[in-house]
Amino acid sequence: MNNVAVRNIDRAEQKTVVALGELGVATVHEAQGRTGLLQPYMRPIYAGARIGGSAITVLLHPGDNWMLHVAVELARPGDIIVATVSAANSDGMFGDLLATSFRARGVIGLVIDAGCRDVKDLTEMRFPVWSRAVSAKGTVKATVGSVNVPIVCAGMLIAPGDTIVADDDGVVVVSRRNADQVLASSQKRLANEEQKRARLAAGELGLDLYKMREPLAKAGLVYYDRLSDVKE
Amino acid sequence: MNNVAVRNIDRAEQKTVVALGELGVATVHEAQGRTGLLQPYMRPIYAGARIGGSAITVLLHPGDNWMLHVAVELARPGDIIVATVSAANSDGMFGDLLATSFRARGVIGLVIDAGCRDVKDLTEMRFPVWSRAVSAKGTVKATVGSVNVPIVCAGMLIAPGDTIVADDDGVVVVSRRNADQVLASSQKRLANEEQKRARLAAGELGLDLYKMREPLAKAGLVYYDRLSDVKE
Amino acid sequence: MNNVAVRNIDRAEQKTVVALGELGVATVHEAQGRTGLLQPYMRPIYAGARIGGSAITVLLHPGDNWMLHVAVELARPGDIIVATVSAANSDGMFGDLLATSFRARGVIGLVIDAGCRDVKDLTEMRFPVWSRAVSAKGTVKATVGSVNVPIVCAGMLIAPGDTIVADDDGVVVVSRRNADQVLASSQKRLANEEQKRARLAAGELGLDLYKMREPLAKAGLVYYDRLSDVKE
Amino acid sequence: MNNVAVRNIDRAEQKTVVALGELGVATVHEAQGRTGLLQPYMRPIYAGARIGGSAITVLLHPGDNWMLHVAVELARPGDIIVATVSAANSDGMFGDLLATSFRARGVIGLVIDAGCRDVKDLTEMRFPVWSRAVSAKGTVKATVGSVNVPIVCAGMLIAPGDTIVADDDGVVVVSRRNADQVLASSQKRLANEEQKRARLAAGELGLDLYKMREPLAKAGLVYYDRLSDVKE
Amino acid sequence: MNNVAVRNIDRAEQKTVVALGELGVATVHEAQGRTGLLQPYMRPIYAGARIGGSAITVLLHPGDNWMLHVAVELARPGDIIVATVSAANSDGMFGDLLATSFRARGVIGLVIDAGCRDVKDLTEMRFPVWSRAVSAKGTVKATVGSVNVPIVCAGMLIAPGDTIVADDDGVVVVSRRNADQVLASSQKRLANEEQKRARLAAGELGLDLYKMREPLAKAGLVYYDRLSDVKE
Amino acid sequence: MNNVAVRNIDRAEQKTVVALGELGVATVHEAQGRTGLLQPYMRPIYAGARIGGSAITVLLHPGDNWMLHVAVELARPGDIIVATVSAANSDGMFGDLLATSFRARGVIGLVIDAGCRDVKDLTEMRFPVWSRAVSAKGTVKATVGSVNVPIVCAGMLIAPGDTIVADDDGVVVVSRRNADQVLASSQKRLANEEQKRARLAAGELGLDLYKMREPLAKAGLVYYDRLSDVKE
Repeated sequence: MNNVAVRNIDRAEQKTVVALGELGVATVHEAQGRTGLLQPYMRPIYAGARIGGSAITVLLHPGDNWMLHVAVELARPGDIIVATVSAANSDGMFGDLLATSFRARGVIGLVIDAGCRDVKDLTEMRFPVWSRAVSAKGTVKATVGSVNVPIVCAGMLIAPGDTIVADDDGVVVVSRRNADQVLASSQKRLANEEQKRARLAAGELGLDLYKMREPLAKAGLVYYDRLSDVKE
Repeated sequence: MNNVAVRNIDRAEQKTVVALGELGVATVHEAQGRTGLLQPYMRPIYAGARIGGSAITVLLHPGDNWMLHVAVELARPGDIIVATVSAANSDGMFGDLLATSFRARGVIGLVIDAGCRDVKDLTEMRFPVWSRAVSAKGTVKATVGSVNVPIVCAGMLIAPGDTIVADDDGVVVVSRRNADQVLASSQKRLANEEQKRARLAAGELGLDLYKMREPLAKAGLVYYDRLSDVKE
Repeated sequence: MNNVAVRNIDRAEQKTVVALGELGVATVHEAQGRTGLLQPYMRPIYAGARIGGSAITVLLHPGDNWMLHVAVELARPGDIIVATVSAANSDGMFGDLLATSFRARGVIGLVIDAGCRDVKDLTEMRFPVWSRAVSAKGTVKATVGSVNVPIVCAGMLIAPGDTIVADDDGVVVVSRRNADQVLASSQKRLANEEQKRARLAAGELGLDLYKMREPLAKAGLVYYDRLSDVKE
Repeated sequence: MNNVAVRNIDRAEQKTVVALGELGVATVHEAQGRTGLLQPYMRPIYAGARIGGSAITVLLHPGDNWMLHVAVELARPGDIIVATVSAANSDGMFGDLLATSFRARGVIGLVIDAGCRDVKDLTEMRFPVWSRAVSAKGTVKATVGSVNVPIVCAGMLIAPGDTIVADDDGVVVVSRRNADQVLASSQKRLANEEQKRARLAAGELGLDLYKMREPLAKAGLVYYDRLSDVKE
Repeated sequence: MNNVAVRNIDRAEQKTVVALGELGVATVHEAQGRTGLLQPYMRPIYAGARIGGSAITVLLHPGDNWMLHVAVELARPGDIIVATVSAANSDGMFGDLLATSFRARGVIGLVIDAGCRDVKDLTEMRFPVWSRAVSAKGTVKATVGSVNVPIVCAGMLIAPGDTIVADDDGVVVVSRRNADQVLASSQKRLANEEQKRARLAAGELGLDLYKMREPLAKAGLVYYDRLSDVKE
Repeated sequence: MNNVAVRNIDRAEQKTVVALGELGVATVHEAQGRTGLLQPYMRPIYAGARIGGSAITVLLHPGDNWMLHVAVELARPGDIIVATVSAANSDGMFGDLLATSFRARGVIGLVIDAGCRDVKDLTEMRFPVWSRAVSAKGTVKATVGSVNVPIVCAGMLIAPGDTIVADDDGVVVVSRRNADQVLASSQKRLANEEQKRARLAAGELGLDLYKMREPLAKAGLVYYDRLSDVKE
């Protein structure tokens, strides 16, 4: 595929996307069958952010952040820019000037399989970034890539318009077609967890709450009073 | 050894364990002859926690956190759960539900040579975890491991009941039999450090405080006024 | 070269050094033509510090921090100690006692291609350290190295007296001879950025601000309305 | 997507696939515009193999190689099995028994983003494998994955039926639709290289052969007779 | 524990040890329930060696190989020296002179969680070493460790006298008490594999040989004729 | 420093350089006081090569191998090209065409802190390369670097004309001014080793040959007959 920028993409409904963002990565990842998680080397530059948005996808080349400027024009308020590089690279592709531009256009965060810089300023701005590295290494604007084409980012295939959820636990992608269904499952899961949390907080054991004692015995777990009682 | 759970273990005296926890990892590690430190890839999920407790040891299998439920029943208030996995694995084996259960039963922290998730919630709860990774990757409850058997965790042999100290510097294990002796050495070391700290804060040099000038000269250090004076 | 300690070194003017420190790593690194950056594995032990100082260079050996004591005597207020090790090593070479001594003599920070410990205390003291690891692993004082000789630290050649700037983005070195010129370039760059920031914050796109639309088209970027319009 | 096995896939023409295999990874990768290369951590278990085949894609789960048995039935002679795992895993998913089965059915190699074992036997059989690790760690057959669905393997998106070329330089994927065109470009490139090789072997410099002297001067390269002549 | 050297250790019977060595790592590891494997970063310095022997265990300190000289005196012909270091270290602790000494005393190989050097000479001598690194970095003889105490090597607990098997797939440890039983299981497994190998070589599928078709369907695998038939 | 190419450099005497090459990395590294070793991630693309030559140094930029063409013109027969990159990069900067040109001009090997490709061809040609990675990833010729300036390569400072020795153990640099002296030390060391090798091969222990028994006892090593005799 040549170097293209695609203007219009389909997204999940914005209220669904926002709701998924509030639920967080672990819940959403579980609710869609433990899939969609980007590699755990993708870390937030500061603790505490949690966002959900539709992906504007970007394919960059090493040491070159030109296409981030193309991407921001194609984003709508509430979108997340998701960028990958054609080869492993930790250069600082994004800093406070671009963040200022992103914010002015309503972009709410960046997921980038490369480096990020100006993290002190970004932290003060509360503009969240998930990246593989922090590096002050600057970049050029010389080689064209693509915007809004399917990309592989941190090991996951991400299509433009897919729903992205990111927080302190990492980043998960939900196919935009499945967003409503995953939201329903997530909410059900959350409700279910609330009940469990109360019982566990009261001192009830998971062994009893989840009725694990019999399955554990069947699976071969044997209790001993003392380590010295165990026959090798 | 088969899959076993051992109900009763010996611990060092709780007041010794608590006192070691207050001294911190660096002091305790030094006081026992620079041994017992887990690999430095074991990092706290948030800064500032410092704990001491007796180890409930857990052997898990990749992608399976079942035995953590078995472990919590066998813990006493003040204990620390210390878990390892039979193969390298960064899955998110522990989250806020389990932390709720752990806390309800008096467990004060987790050391796990695998991943951890829900770190935003765990941070708000102030439930400290030292792990090799943060990952939202969920786990199953299908394969049985063991509780309260000797394990290797992050490169160290840990027996059930051993004393664990963990803080921002990492994690150290003290054999429960040596806990009193290591405490005594640690306290002596600390007292000694206080005097040194005062003298150093007053501007005295380590060179003089530790009487290093003569040994340095004997060991071959030569002073020059300028770099250009040095003969190659 | 034998084991030497050099007493007198040339530095850039202190006001230049301080001014570079206030500008931060990303700006200074760009202003000197994207050079001088240490490897991005050098990370601060806590967020938010930003310093500039002249380098007292130290060559250590694995597991041995003896020469840090030699270095502090040769430092002037405002200096930064920059230490490397003759082989890869993550031992905790520096802790709160040495920090107390460094501070008493006016040293404002440490850059060390090895480990650091007592990070809880150092954070409370606000004594900033950039290191490759956090580790409680103690060290001995048995082998002599050198102070104020040229060293390679985290991939960069650093001469004694060179200007060091460090913040959340990493560490950059500026040759002391170039410090004034780099300061001038940095300040010019900063002024230029202020104007851009205001325009970007107002919603102007980088595409227009930097006049990128024509170069992008020349470089082969093609816009499509929909992904399905793209011919493979 | 649920767990599926797809029986029929489209492939590029076998003679094209074989011809690409003979050209090798570096040539093919260049001929398709420097794209399609899997991460360089994918290494051959022995030196010297070079193959081309159509991909039977497999999605596995950590510690479980069940789907490799499903895959081999769906392969045709000359195919290459390309497997990925749903989470990072280095277990030894493939050994000499499976290789015997693969060879009996005409499969000519394996590309797997996980571990491989029995490498002594595989080397003696000359059954080539490209993997991320060598590990004797055994696997189970308990969790179902998929065969012949699009996968991400070592950072690249691979569709069933895509052409795979693998040799000592790594692994490259060519979309089956582009195989003929990439073959033509590769052959042209190769012919061109032959001429260059002869001239270079005769001592002609690349500077002259590629007419680089003027562009280098324009780009700012300055020649000096001695290092001491260079002004800083 | 202080620094000790233990003269006499118990071993499994030598013919059992030799027989396990001939079976190889993958078979032995499977036969003892997929346990005992050292981390896969332990790699042979040349391909093709396969050995079995009883462990003389050694605890070294970084940059210091003194205890290897103590160990060789305590070894019997047929033993394997197994060494670990008290902190991560890749120094070249072993070379051709020590290999000459080891061979003269009947030691048949070395497993070392550190570096190795003179690999060209060791390869010519056919003295096999499994190490975490190759490095020419020399070591000193200054700090005392221990010989024939339990150690943790590459993540595994190894007692003196345990049986070690090493080949191109890595290194596995068998408790000396279990050696006979693991040998019996290994041989049974091997016999079983021979039959399977013949059937697989004849083109029978694992799906039929292992009767997997029904379990796969029960576990939810669905076959489709074409990828386009799959409903998302 | 700007982008420069320096035509004339000083070298050690060629017979000294060749003699050092024959001695190998471990011996030379020891003979110059255990200094000068490049990081151990620098590995040969095939086993068995051993060379010594004077360094033509090259500073490259990521993804760009242009300056290798400039370097070869400035080399003399017997030289080794030593290249580094201004940021971490594993692209395949060197392949069989460049090797053909290098060989035609008498260059005997390449040391490059980046990737290398065409390793099958290079192996058949017996053109030795030490690199940090093998990767087919192609490069461009767009950005100018420098030739024959001091560089940092794999953690070591290398000046143009320094002597490079490389073999299966890695790469070591010797300052051209010290080459004669290091050769003398190396030869002395080698002669000394020959005598030791004969005595060790005859079964004499290092403990006796090096008179270690008394120092070991003084350093605190205690012998026990059985592990059970050791008091904790």
